[in-house]
Amino acid sequence: MSIQTDVRAKAQAAKQAAAQMARVATDVKNRALFLMADRLVAETDFLLSENAKDVAAARAEGQSAPLVERLTLNAARVGEMAAGLREVAALPDPVGEILGMTRRPNGMQVGQMRVPIGLIGIVYESRPNVTADVVALCVKSGNGVLLRGGSEAIHSNRAIARLLRESAAASGLPADAITLLDQTDRQAIMEMLDLVGIVDLIIPRGGAGLMRLVDEHARVPVMKHDQGLCHIYVDESADLAMAEAICVNAKVQRPATCNAMETLLVHRAVAPTFLPSLAKRLTDAGCTLRGCPHTLAILPTIAPATEDDWGTEYLALVLVIKIVDDLDHAMAHIATYGSAHSEAILTQNHPRAMRFLHEVDASAVLVNASTRLNDGFQLGLGAEMGISTSRIHARGPMGLTALTCAKFIVLGDGQLRE
Amino acid sequence: MSIQTDVRAKAQAAKQAAAQMARVATDVKNRALFLMADRLVAETDFLLSENAKDVAAARAEGQSAPLVERLTLNAARVGEMAAGLREVAALPDPVGEILGMTRRPNGMQVGQMRVPIGLIGIVYESRPNVTADVVALCVKSGNGVLLRGGSEAIHSNRAIARLLRESAAASGLPADAITLLDQTDRQAIMEMLDLVGIVDLIIPRGGAGLMRLVDEHARVPVMKHDQGLCHIYVDESADLAMAEAICVNAKVQRPATCNAMETLLVHRAVAPTFLPSLAKRLTDAGCTLRGCPHTLAILPTIAPATEDDWGTEYLALVLVIKIVDDLDHAMAHIATYGSAHSEAILTQNHPRAMRFLHEVDASAVLVNASTRLNDGFQLGLGAEMGISTSRIHARGPMGLTALTCAKFIVLGDGQLRE
Repeated sequence: MSIQTDVRAKAQAAKQAAAQMARVATDVKNRALFLMADRLVAETDFLLSENAKDVAAARAEGQSAPLVERLTLNAARVGEMAAGLREVAALPDPVGEILGMTRRPNGMQVGQMRVPIGLIGIVYESRPNVTADVVALCVKSGNGVLLRGGSEAIHSNRAIARLLRESAAASGLPADAITLLDQTDRQAIMEMLDLVGIVDLIIPRGGAGLMRLVDEHARVPVMKHDQGLCHIYVDESADLAMAEAICVNAKVQRPATCNAMETLLVHRAVAPTFLPSLAKRLTDAGCTLRGCPHTLAILPTIAPATEDDWGTEYLALVLVIKIVDDLDHAMAHIATYGSAHSEAILTQNHPRAMRFLHEVDASAVLVNASTRLNDGFQLGLGAEMGISTSRIHARGPMGLTALTCAKFIVLGDGQLRE
Repeated sequence: MSIQTDVRAKAQAAKQAAAQMARVATDVKNRALFLMADRLVAETDFLLSENAKDVAAARAEGQSAPLVERLTLNAARVGEMAAGLREVAALPDPVGEILGMTRRPNGMQVGQMRVPIGLIGIVYESRPNVTADVVALCVKSGNGVLLRGGSEAIHSNRAIARLLRESAAASGLPADAITLLDQTDRQAIMEMLDLVGIVDLIIPRGGAGLMRLVDEHARVPVMKHDQGLCHIYVDESADLAMAEAICVNAKVQRPATCNAMETLLVHRAVAPTFLPSLAKRLTDAGCTLRGCPHTLAILPTIAPATEDDWGTEYLALVLVIKIVDDLDHAMAHIATYGSAHSEAILTQNHPRAMRFLHEVDASAVLVNASTRLNDGFQLGLGAEMGISTSRIHARGPMGLTALTCAKFIVLGDGQLRE
């Protein structure tokens, strides 16, 4: 069978299963999630032996140490997957939630009801725990899920998906609601992107190459999880001790993430006081600094920033620093170079905090908090599918409700259109 | 200049204006809407003389009477456009609305804030009043709008857009936030569909040909306004007098609309009582009836329905009737043939009403009310951009809030990621 035929056939079966999923009662879905968690733990040895094949292949191919690390499962990580499934079971079911019933002048009551989206396609890479995480969210929100993981994790993903499917079926869910595509080449992604009327939403999680492929070929709706070029603006009225702690956290705590700070903007009035101490802490933490000419006047030992630096997402211990004249200057820089992901202002001045909060265009705008907090768990969603950088449907961390949409409902007693 | 270059240049200017629009205060937007309304009324003679060119061209081309009727403006219709602008001014501004601030265990407050989507592209046909309607909604919701109307209305649309732009500029709004594309050939639509990163959302309103074009070529997000193949299910416990009134309304009141009933499903227990009287009223109203074999046993003079009939959106005085065994049979038929637009159950039985409400997949599900009520004005949105048949972002009538998205906001006092 051609890849095209196979992907389409599997997707169609998953779509039919998704329609059944929409009607499954919450307690049935929860029992399935608990059973999945128990099965993963019970089959830890099987999962680790399948995972070992992927890890051996990655090593044989000379893959980077970070990739091998992300790929590797152990008993603790299997336990975390199981814990994640149980946590999603404990979250409220968004399906069937009714939003604001109001009575119209003609007496009918009108509101909206949350319903699943349908069949959701996920394209992801390396970390096999994503398989369990996204299945948990899709099952709980009553959606079907079509998974396409990376080739490097294919044995692990097959093993995890098999246990999840078996647990689903044993709990009374349609097994095809959880469908892993075996095909790991690019052609399978191209086919998914083309399944108009079958796949209702594609969530691509990956690097710039995947995003380009999606921009070029997607004919189905997409919620992109794209890069983060995130700024912190330290205002003249910032609490500088707090600002130093936040800047260090946003840059150093996990620099390879999309919500890490890439560019620091500092008001010129506080730069001479603020920057030397911060620079020392960042340099001590292994960070390379680059700066605008005004920054270099204060930190003469760092390298000058080039125009390219302002538009680069390093995902590494590199920080570019610019001194700005005021809030407007900072917001103009963010509007020009930012990727509308996570943007923070540090200030004690209320009007400026409110202007930044209202006017800055980003999936999350933060006042006096680290950009690293733009995350589904940190923001209280309980779990997340990743962080949407799209401008419709959902911005920022996508939790269970972002995997639903709202239909209108009308309760009448004979109302007509006049 | 090529069409491609011109469309892209205009869209880029509109995108920049959209960024400014996002920050305009509500009272400034409202004053602009009132000025637009006043200008349209003051320039009625100019609008009618420009419109007369379109009407003359349509007649010369031998266009159908309904098209010429939709195209024609008169003083009353100009007054309705102005009234629509004033009504949108009176609606609450969705921008800046804060949704549910909650306090996290670390003390930071987390919520969401409604923000404009950005630049919205609208592709539409014939009726020039749509130009004013969609501009009103986009301006009020802080978005920029890129308009591409049909060639048949180009003089009318140019005249309306010019007055709206001038009023916007006179009120302090960026004029390019309201941009009409002069190009009326298909190439202009193709270009719009390709403007990744410039147009944030395209809303196509039109027939099957436009929808196919969009499915085939859209690389930007789309909210489709597709066809409605709508059903009413008359349950065995329906109030039959109410059911007759609703069915007549849903079929006859305006049969060319997407929320008109196309197929009637009747429980077999009430069909012999219900159908003869209904059939007489529908036939008297000029309606052609077709039926399943069981229906023909009750209404022997009507034509038999073919398999094609169940899947056809007639948009005309044609009704197909099927007798079903029970609620499950009705819902299975709707799932197979429906277009997930507007679906109604007529019943006095509460559990069956609730099952239908929860389980039927449609942009609006109605109990004891006419499908014709699936409309932004009827449902209380105040105005609408049309009825979305998409499965993400918004289903059903799109009002002002559907032209926004929600970003996360965090108010902290020094919170870090642990």
